[in-house]
Amino acid sequence: MEIIRSVPEMRRASAGFAGKGRVVGIVPTMGYLHDGHVSLIRHARSTSDVVITTIFVNPAQFGPSEDFDRYPRDFERDERTARDAGTDILFAPGREEMYPEDYRTFVVTEGVSTILEGEFRPTHFRGVTTVVAKLLNITRPEKAMFGQKDAQQAFIVQRMVRDLNFDTEVVVRPIVREADGIAMSSRNAYLSKDERGRATVLYASLQYAARSVAAGERDTKKIASEMRSMVNTGRPEQIDYISFIDPERFAIVSELPRPSVLVALAVRFGRTRLIDNIMIDIP
Amino acid sequence: MEIIRSVPEMRRASAGFAGKGRVVGIVPTMGYLHDGHVSLIRHARSTSDVVITTIFVNPAQFGPSEDFDRYPRDFERDERTARDAGTDILFAPGREEMYPEDYRTFVVTEGVSTILEGEFRPTHFRGVTTVVAKLLNITRPEKAMFGQKDAQQAFIVQRMVRDLNFDTEVVVRPIVREADGIAMSSRNAYLSKDERGRATVLYASLQYAARSVAAGERDTKKIASEMRSMVNTGRPEQIDYISFIDPERFAIVSELPRPSVLVALAVRFGRTRLIDNIMIDIP
Repeated sequence: MEIIRSVPEMRRASAGFAGKGRVVGIVPTMGYLHDGHVSLIRHARSTSDVVITTIFVNPAQFGPSEDFDRYPRDFERDERTARDAGTDILFAPGREEMYPEDYRTFVVTEGVSTILEGEFRPTHFRGVTTVVAKLLNITRPEKAMFGQKDAQQAFIVQRMVRDLNFDTEVVVRPIVREADGIAMSSRNAYLSKDERGRATVLYASLQYAARSVAAGERDTKKIASEMRSMVNTGRPEQIDYISFIDPERFAIVSELPRPSVLVALAVRFGRTRLIDNIMIDIP
Repeated sequence: MEIIRSVPEMRRASAGFAGKGRVVGIVPTMGYLHDGHVSLIRHARSTSDVVITTIFVNPAQFGPSEDFDRYPRDFERDERTARDAGTDILFAPGREEMYPEDYRTFVVTEGVSTILEGEFRPTHFRGVTTVVAKLLNITRPEKAMFGQKDAQQAFIVQRMVRDLNFDTEVVVRPIVREADGIAMSSRNAYLSKDERGRATVLYASLQYAARSVAAGERDTKKIASEMRSMVNTGRPEQIDYISFIDPERFAIVSELPRPSVLVALAVRFGRTRLIDNIMIDIP
């Protein structure tokens, strides 16, 4: 595995792969890699000739009061994890390399960026679409892997890629969970042991929603209200949202859409904000 | 010369050129081609293996009260002009092809987009950077040609290309003028014969600024005031601005910057808004 830290060097390497007709797959991450990332890297490994994992804690997607400074970082461990999962190139540019002082350009996907996560993190998706556009131009991959845990991000990146005519297929892979059901996330590292235990109510409430729909319940208010009660048993700091979404257009719905509904939530335990979701087929 | 109207077809053609290592140069235009465009196409011809001229009257760069509907169009004449100047592929996508109904993504270069043209045309540069980003992704050119007549546009496109890491060199070529000094522009077609005659004061005033600086004048207020008097002899509807700009960072200045200054103006004659500029070395 080669480690590249400069944009021009990464660009040269990518041009070389394109020249040889080799299929490039990238896995854009903010590092502190977990099994969710590993599953993305492995999928890239099995579907591409060259696997590029990127590690960049992107300041543009953090709000001024958010956790950019304390976001967990462990480059040595990430290096081993990325290599073991099958990465060919670990691209880890510095902040100045990506955002020079007179940096001014941002990519915005309107509408869908202002609901749910976008309501609580107003400039978050602007930061995501901007850095992904940059990474796609630097690495020019045939495929880019994203996790379904960040479902709204995955939708917005797909839309951005389609709208701006990037020649990249966005591949969205399933959520990987811990044994107790908690969705893998670098931010899980923030949780105290107690918070960690209480946070298991999130996936439990999503599973409840799935069972409830499977059993014929169609009243979203009723399901959401029951979910809220379940989540509250975990004594969260705050429930930011529990929402039903039509995954085709990523719009919040009050009636269950066909053929499937995405149920997504964001909940704070202590200072830590967790998100999770489940896709439910409507029978 | 081949005419391509679909994005996937253009993309396939571009991928073919890249595969063969052929250098692609594009000339993005809104059509109604004039000798300014011809000089860009010829420059692309002399520096690239494949010349792509694009014609797309981009709705995103027109304001709601602007001239999108009456913008001059003459595809048959453009076809001949583009071919004669050395175009290999004329890419002329339809509006729906470029902006499907649920289109949502925009590219914005902040700061420099809100002064001068951006002050009078608030969403103009957002439309320009968005369509250029799309065209660069569709055609993946080594070089993209822009005219110095739209100096602010050229600066913003260069900044956008650098910021988003597009692997394209933005080439800015000199203004081409009519015999009487008027800068070539598709919008000149709007001018009545009388307005056309009066509009010659624009270049005359820019030449005055150049002579004045060459003669040792350093007071920008004095130069601007004299220019304003000259332009007013042409009985314009309105002078939007006459500004001195540091071309290195495209900022309005009150003191002459070294090593050169850009003097830019926007003036309306009847319903027609004309822009022009001159680059002056400071001795």
